[in-house]
Amino acid sequence: MEAWRTAIVDARDGEIRIRGNDVTSLMTERTFTDTVFLLHRARLPADQERAMLDAILSAVADHGSGAPSCAAARLAISGNRASVSAAVAAGILTIGDEHGGAGSGCMEMIAAGVERARRESLTFEECASRIVGEHRAIGKRVAGFGHRVHTDDPRTPVLFDLAARNGLAGDGIRLIKAMHAAVSAQVKPMTINVDGSMAAVLYDMGFQPVFARLLFIIGRVAGLTAEVMEELDRERPMRIRVPVVYDGEGGSTPSESE
Amino acid sequence: MEAWRTAIVDARDGEIRIRGNDVTSLMTERTFTDTVFLLHRARLPADQERAMLDAILSAVADHGSGAPSCAAARLAISGNRASVSAAVAAGILTIGDEHGGAGSGCMEMIAAGVERARRESLTFEECASRIVGEHRAIGKRVAGFGHRVHTDDPRTPVLFDLAARNGLAGDGIRLIKAMHAAVSAQVKPMTINVDGSMAAVLYDMGFQPVFARLLFIIGRVAGLTAEVMEELDRERPMRIRVPVVYDGEGGSTPSESE
Amino acid sequence: MEAWRTAIVDARDGEIRIRGNDVTSLMTERTFTDTVFLLHRARLPADQERAMLDAILSAVADHGSGAPSCAAARLAISGNRASVSAAVAAGILTIGDEHGGAGSGCMEMIAAGVERARRESLTFEECASRIVGEHRAIGKRVAGFGHRVHTDDPRTPVLFDLAARNGLAGDGIRLIKAMHAAVSAQVKPMTINVDGSMAAVLYDMGFQPVFARLLFIIGRVAGLTAEVMEELDRERPMRIRVPVVYDGEGGSTPSESE
Amino acid sequence: MEAWRTAIVDARDGEIRIRGNDVTSLMTERTFTDTVFLLHRARLPADQERAMLDAILSAVADHGSGAPSCAAARLAISGNRASVSAAVAAGILTIGDEHGGAGSGCMEMIAAGVERARRESLTFEECASRIVGEHRAIGKRVAGFGHRVHTDDPRTPVLFDLAARNGLAGDGIRLIKAMHAAVSAQVKPMTINVDGSMAAVLYDMGFQPVFARLLFIIGRVAGLTAEVMEELDRERPMRIRVPVVYDGEGGSTPSESE
Repeated sequence: MEAWRTAIVDARDGEIRIRGNDVTSLMTERTFTDTVFLLHRARLPADQERAMLDAILSAVADHGSGAPSCAAARLAISGNRASVSAAVAAGILTIGDEHGGAGSGCMEMIAAGVERARRESLTFEECASRIVGEHRAIGKRVAGFGHRVHTDDPRTPVLFDLAARNGLAGDGIRLIKAMHAAVSAQVKPMTINVDGSMAAVLYDMGFQPVFARLLFIIGRVAGLTAEVMEELDRERPMRIRVPVVYDGEGGSTPSESE
Repeated sequence: MEAWRTAIVDARDGEIRIRGNDVTSLMTERTFTDTVFLLHRARLPADQERAMLDAILSAVADHGSGAPSCAAARLAISGNRASVSAAVAAGILTIGDEHGGAGSGCMEMIAAGVERARRESLTFEECASRIVGEHRAIGKRVAGFGHRVHTDDPRTPVLFDLAARNGLAGDGIRLIKAMHAAVSAQVKPMTINVDGSMAAVLYDMGFQPVFARLLFIIGRVAGLTAEVMEELDRERPMRIRVPVVYDGEGGSTPSESE
Repeated sequence: MEAWRTAIVDARDGEIRIRGNDVTSLMTERTFTDTVFLLHRARLPADQERAMLDAILSAVADHGSGAPSCAAARLAISGNRASVSAAVAAGILTIGDEHGGAGSGCMEMIAAGVERARRESLTFEECASRIVGEHRAIGKRVAGFGHRVHTDDPRTPVLFDLAARNGLAGDGIRLIKAMHAAVSAQVKPMTINVDGSMAAVLYDMGFQPVFARLLFIIGRVAGLTAEVMEELDRERPMRIRVPVVYDGEGGSTPSESE
Repeated sequence: MEAWRTAIVDARDGEIRIRGNDVTSLMTERTFTDTVFLLHRARLPADQERAMLDAILSAVADHGSGAPSCAAARLAISGNRASVSAAVAAGILTIGDEHGGAGSGCMEMIAAGVERARRESLTFEECASRIVGEHRAIGKRVAGFGHRVHTDDPRTPVLFDLAARNGLAGDGIRLIKAMHAAVSAQVKPMTINVDGSMAAVLYDMGFQPVFARLLFIIGRVAGLTAEVMEELDRERPMRIRVPVVYDGEGGSTPSESE
């Protein structure tokens, strides 16, 4: 088998280097968030950059046991008590465009919008208005807006304030704020949700779009492990019963699943 | 990299052989259930053996959308609409000792019990009585008995009848029936569930214990794919809301997850 | 929590009905492949339909231990010896557009092509030629053609012959054959692979595109469970070593992973 | 459906509280590692406690692309290019007793050993000697010792030094050091690996055994996301080929998997 190439980790007897940094110095002199940044950017972060990642990771760590990712992890450990790895994985598998993963699509939209404003000499307000109009024309939701629970997502202003204070606010945040106005005018008032605000911040920090979803996963895993531990501590196996109504051939009746 | 060894499949340009059988002859002359048997036993089944596997696979394919495996698959596709692989995998991850996987432990218990009856010159009734007593003494449930929904699991007598008709009933079925009597006498009346009856049948057919869980997975996957397809066809993304009550620091209140 | 609706399974004490069929009659009178068909089509198959599903399921069950799905399952059970559910799930997670999942995209292409031929009054040859030309123009591969191992995929003619013999060959097979000629003329000679031939057959049988990937998963799971069982039987834990070369900061050197 | 109970997160319109702490204050005043601690211990850490978690999380984040978890994630994204969630989950599924998960078993052994020393009035040296002897008698490996790559795991002395400097070293570290001497005397010289050293440290910090595996997962996920991103950036789909030799019925020959 041809050897795999990597520029991430070099390990040999007695030594582990991550992106050229000895792991023992990372352990003693750096935070885990520094290591997260280093792994994905191939350099250590400035203090301001670390502060932003810390804020995003805590923002997405958990949103309640009934969130699809948390609920799936609990269902898995309830039926398969022996494997916490399986339960955490089940939770991660629920993360996609509809849950936790909208940030990547939103970053792509922001990147395309900033480029378009430059190319077509549009103000961000004009550009945002057109993007929203085009979404409406094809009946597509604009990624990064609206939330099942929050009228105003409390995490968004915190991320924008932090970015401003840390000198990291740029075109991404400017554009999504313009889009917020356009969405509110053309569709209805909708909060910039945490997917949208983290997408804008990560764009301004120079990350690739795929990183938004990856960073959500890193943060959420800490919530999933806590949910799994609580389920093991507090609940009996197979305690979960989902109410089901059968409405297929032969009538509509409450049904009992195993 | 050292080459991996396998005795399952040999593939090369224009030819695929499974356990020495050309896949094209399997496709035209055999059923999928034959291929399942062949893959795990390295020979094709007799008609009676195929009939037993067919019965078990249909028996466990699905037990309703609220079963942990089915519910987890639906949660996953609801949040991560793009990946049916991820949803099916999430469903499989819920399968363990508590859900769908008890058959393997039950087969180990049966194998040990049959061996013990022989070694200690016990009747199966005596042996079953001791095993149940020993479980009671350490407060452990006897695998293969009881069901959340069924007072009498309707799949169990069908499997036993089929095994008898096909000439495949042996010590496994004899022992689990003796255990059924012992459980009912010493604990309370409890049905032999499908995990228990399939364990007895698979033991009598000469399978390894791990195969009980693997066969459950093969059968259940067909249910999971159907559940995923129905969720995609009939429901909107992120429709699932699990009711949650927060009872931690600061009081007990209904909570809303994302 | 609002009850979930389903038309697949109705279960209650002593009774399990799949699409209105009592599971005990499926167990005794039908094959597992019938149950697979029933779960996804809400009716039992004709003999010809069952024969096609059996052929497809055996065709995709396994293609060697080094296939990504099989290799991932083996890696998982090698590191996480206790959970066969986790290993099978890891195998399924490798299935996507590039591995095992091309059939769904191919079915969508076939459905659109058949509809376009009708709408634009094109022969299938004309339609196929345009579709291939359009793929070339944007540098996109045509789904369903070419194979890493097979110059001529041996499973494809078998599926087409079976479909003809069973009276199930229709526009799907006609169109993909026309595409085969167009690909060979415009690009290079390439086999219709099993993803392409199963897509054509499933289209002619009236299935939805998503079913192609789901059916691949059902078939492949039987191979994954056999691969997992062989790894457990024949190999020691953590035996797998992937050779790695580090080519990042600080030079290019062979590296040793844990 | 009966509401689920949780003491982790309380979310409602405009507010998210984790263990009673407003998420916005965690975002601005705390690190992600604080949030990890908070989620699992229901209180914020002291500086010394945070430093230990940071060190452990960086220690286990990645150990090279060929580690089973990293290799499985790469295999998955190579075949299923569209789903980073699926790839990260595949990586997690390889984590078990043999890979990454030994810390939990090691913590249980430490907890039992400390208790036993107290109960039987043994010195830690005597207790360690007996434990190692008992493992040898039943041919069982002692969890937490030995490493495929490292003669001396470079992470272990760093963790022990940090624990000492932070005033968190206790019976766990004392016992595992005694066991190290016993293993070296009775079996052969073997390093305390990172699973063993983190187990000792986490025991001394008052964590439950299951947390060792959960914490490994949290740290490793950051490596998995980086491995997945590099595979997407640098490699073509389906590039991975595992060499396979077929040694089943009909002879021993190199085989080609799909």
